[in-house]
Amino acid sequence: MIDVQERPAPGPAEAPAWRHKDLLDTDVLSRADIDLVMETADAMLEVRSRPVAKVATLRGATVVTLFYEQSTRTRASFEVAAKAMGADVVNLTASGSSVVKGESLVDTVRTLEAIGADLLVMRHDRSGAPYLAAKNTKAGVINGGDGTHAHPTQALLDLFTMRRHLGALDGKKVVIVGDVLHSRVARSNVWSLLAAGANVTLCGPATLLPRTLASAGGEEGRVALTADLDRALVDADVVMALRIQKERQATGLIPSLREYINGYQVNATRLARAKPGALVMHPGPMNEGIEISPEAAHGLASVIEEQVANGVAVRMAVLYLMATARTK
Amino acid sequence: MIDVQERPAPGPAEAPAWRHKDLLDTDVLSRADIDLVMETADAMLEVRSRPVAKVATLRGATVVTLFYEQSTRTRASFEVAAKAMGADVVNLTASGSSVVKGESLVDTVRTLEAIGADLLVMRHDRSGAPYLAAKNTKAGVINGGDGTHAHPTQALLDLFTMRRHLGALDGKKVVIVGDVLHSRVARSNVWSLLAAGANVTLCGPATLLPRTLASAGGEEGRVALTADLDRALVDADVVMALRIQKERQATGLIPSLREYINGYQVNATRLARAKPGALVMHPGPMNEGIEISPEAAHGLASVIEEQVANGVAVRMAVLYLMATARTK
Amino acid sequence: MIDVQERPAPGPAEAPAWRHKDLLDTDVLSRADIDLVMETADAMLEVRSRPVAKVATLRGATVVTLFYEQSTRTRASFEVAAKAMGADVVNLTASGSSVVKGESLVDTVRTLEAIGADLLVMRHDRSGAPYLAAKNTKAGVINGGDGTHAHPTQALLDLFTMRRHLGALDGKKVVIVGDVLHSRVARSNVWSLLAAGANVTLCGPATLLPRTLASAGGEEGRVALTADLDRALVDADVVMALRIQKERQATGLIPSLREYINGYQVNATRLARAKPGALVMHPGPMNEGIEISPEAAHGLASVIEEQVANGVAVRMAVLYLMATARTK
Repeated sequence: MIDVQERPAPGPAEAPAWRHKDLLDTDVLSRADIDLVMETADAMLEVRSRPVAKVATLRGATVVTLFYEQSTRTRASFEVAAKAMGADVVNLTASGSSVVKGESLVDTVRTLEAIGADLLVMRHDRSGAPYLAAKNTKAGVINGGDGTHAHPTQALLDLFTMRRHLGALDGKKVVIVGDVLHSRVARSNVWSLLAAGANVTLCGPATLLPRTLASAGGEEGRVALTADLDRALVDADVVMALRIQKERQATGLIPSLREYINGYQVNATRLARAKPGALVMHPGPMNEGIEISPEAAHGLASVIEEQVANGVAVRMAVLYLMATARTK
Repeated sequence: MIDVQERPAPGPAEAPAWRHKDLLDTDVLSRADIDLVMETADAMLEVRSRPVAKVATLRGATVVTLFYEQSTRTRASFEVAAKAMGADVVNLTASGSSVVKGESLVDTVRTLEAIGADLLVMRHDRSGAPYLAAKNTKAGVINGGDGTHAHPTQALLDLFTMRRHLGALDGKKVVIVGDVLHSRVARSNVWSLLAAGANVTLCGPATLLPRTLASAGGEEGRVALTADLDRALVDADVVMALRIQKERQATGLIPSLREYINGYQVNATRLARAKPGALVMHPGPMNEGIEISPEAAHGLASVIEEQVANGVAVRMAVLYLMATARTK
Repeated sequence: MIDVQERPAPGPAEAPAWRHKDLLDTDVLSRADIDLVMETADAMLEVRSRPVAKVATLRGATVVTLFYEQSTRTRASFEVAAKAMGADVVNLTASGSSVVKGESLVDTVRTLEAIGADLLVMRHDRSGAPYLAAKNTKAGVINGGDGTHAHPTQALLDLFTMRRHLGALDGKKVVIVGDVLHSRVARSNVWSLLAAGANVTLCGPATLLPRTLASAGGEEGRVALTADLDRALVDADVVMALRIQKERQATGLIPSLREYINGYQVNATRLARAKPGALVMHPGPMNEGIEISPEAAHGLASVIEEQVANGVAVRMAVLYLMATARTK
């Protein structure tokens, strides 16, 4: 249901070699897949800078956002991205839908496909829910965040932002700091960063570090885990702070906010240990003064607002590639 | 406020003979009205199959959905239908609106008309509410389900689905099974099926059968009521299962779910009594394993997902006919 | 991000002299500013009367509505206005957004700017919140009502409605009746009415009259305060009733609804004291039978529904002028 008209399709080639029906996580993306998303997103960023920041590439396509968890930035970002390419967008949230009638996820998804959804952007509090959805529909499913599992478009927009500042990421050192264990952002970033050639250091209190991720780095040890932020930051090209859930205190996984700040806040003093000009990133929304200091959040090295703006271009690229794959 | 451009209007004639300001129930539709909706929906289904599944027929029209009850499929179906014809859609739900300020329904509707609503799709938990609305506005009002009273577009999409499989419905036998007493779907189906020439058997526990509907079938006895599903199914062309509200148990209207399943579940064993290939239908969302078995719901004879897809075409037809009637 | 195409820009001049990034209240508007809004709204009203009531003036622009308080008419009015000029609209409400995650207003606004919001229509229960937002974003911020402080587009649509009936307002007498103390509508009306040359009488129980507003009328005493409605109405050209919050009784600010009705209800008997044909206005939603009698609300002199319709044209004008100012 895709029509390319009014302006040339903004992709890098006539028929981009995208072959994934769904985007559920970054772990299945090859380096070529990632390069394709990055190049397409470059073209989309150019579209966004035009006086009329729209193309009609997705005219006739229907994008449904299905959010079982609350969100401002992710839902709005996908909505702006889809509308910027002329798609029709239908928003559904758990509170206003049949979900309360106890309809199963599979039935909901099949209904949305039958109604005409070409692409389904889904956020769910249960890890894995988008996989179940994807298996039961011909619509393309994009995971907009599932439980503590994955958030692939966030990882891709993070990568896109890094590449615009650092160029190719081969051999670059990316440090991700915080509650890595419960972070779908961290998990998806590991896969896409490894595919793009970077090395990753995951840093946080020992209780919040997932031992299993170390093996993702292979024998070369491209994924390191450490509880020592000062050592982790040495030679870092990128420092990404994760949002801390204050509720974790109750569970005993973090000792106290004060101790967390002492040990893991990303701030100017600590950043001095990283490479000069190392990028400061955060997936938002931030707890300023906790996992990141206000100075670090808004300093010269911060690219946090750029991440948000790039998110629209990257989501345009993903929607475009997936919609185009559907029509082949 | 309707413009026909870009592609020819998809209706069957230059000026279709639709003369109803509102669509509140099927009981006022003549056979000619129903035929007109069916033929227009045929054209709309063709539109939906195009590479770009859109026309600009309703460009400049504003469709407001006003839902006082939750819904996924009905609201999304109308929204997709309206956008597929280029209308602007504004969604209002009770929880996010002035309704909590205690504004009367009449004031809300007059306000929406003044804002520019051409068509108003309304769902309300009180039977009759859309009639009150319709009386107080020049906008066209479409009943998207009111209490236990009526759900005309559901009945029309059911009819459309039957006709695509069975052709003309004269003399066909349609069995509707379940909590008929509280079902706005069953009630609206009775009127449209009778107008289209079919005979209807309403089947369920005696406590859930509305005696008054029998007289709707006239002296020919075209509406039968029975508590015996096995006998009802003999020679059936269509079997439609209704959603059971589990809350009915508390009120004593149904004995227990197990007894309900024993007596009234639509399943393979029972369907063997109907005509070979009899259609299996359900308005959704289904309680699989209760009013319908998973095998029946997803079997070869099931047209349940087709109902959903046809719903968009039928709602396009209704929106188109009503909008066109407004400009005459 | 504004494109003028398809039809000529509906403004009164090639480059209207609008120089405000934000519209937070009417107190900063000059008479020339107000005249410009009024003339632009005249053109927009003409657009709304066309068979296809749309222009493409804001194609490519993104308007975000961010409502921390519930609303039907204001949010829907802005949404219809923006879509009638071809803008993309993204709706965010507090209940469905990151707000519950405790994200600060400033972060939310910066995120929306980064996502691509050109104009941000904001309603908030805290007086002054839109000022904080406006200071922290390059997007144009329109105050859609903040606490008990201001509601500038309501005041402008009120003024527009008066001018269409009365012509220039110089020397006209406008009486505003009710809980003036807590009314953002009254407050914003005072500034725009004074700028347009009218005299204002604020009338209500002494406990609900803000003494400070008297000085707004300057030495000429162009703002009068009185608790005596019968005297206030003498020679009035316009009588505007305000919505009474029934909760005020609990606080002792009004004695009882019955006494309030006795003293301050706008009804036919009282209106006889005003000028013949004096306009009856109300910002809605009305409590009919309390602050206004049903006969007054729906009588010949009532322009209450016209206010709502004019609201779309005035909001189109405001969105257009602000978007145009952004591209200069």
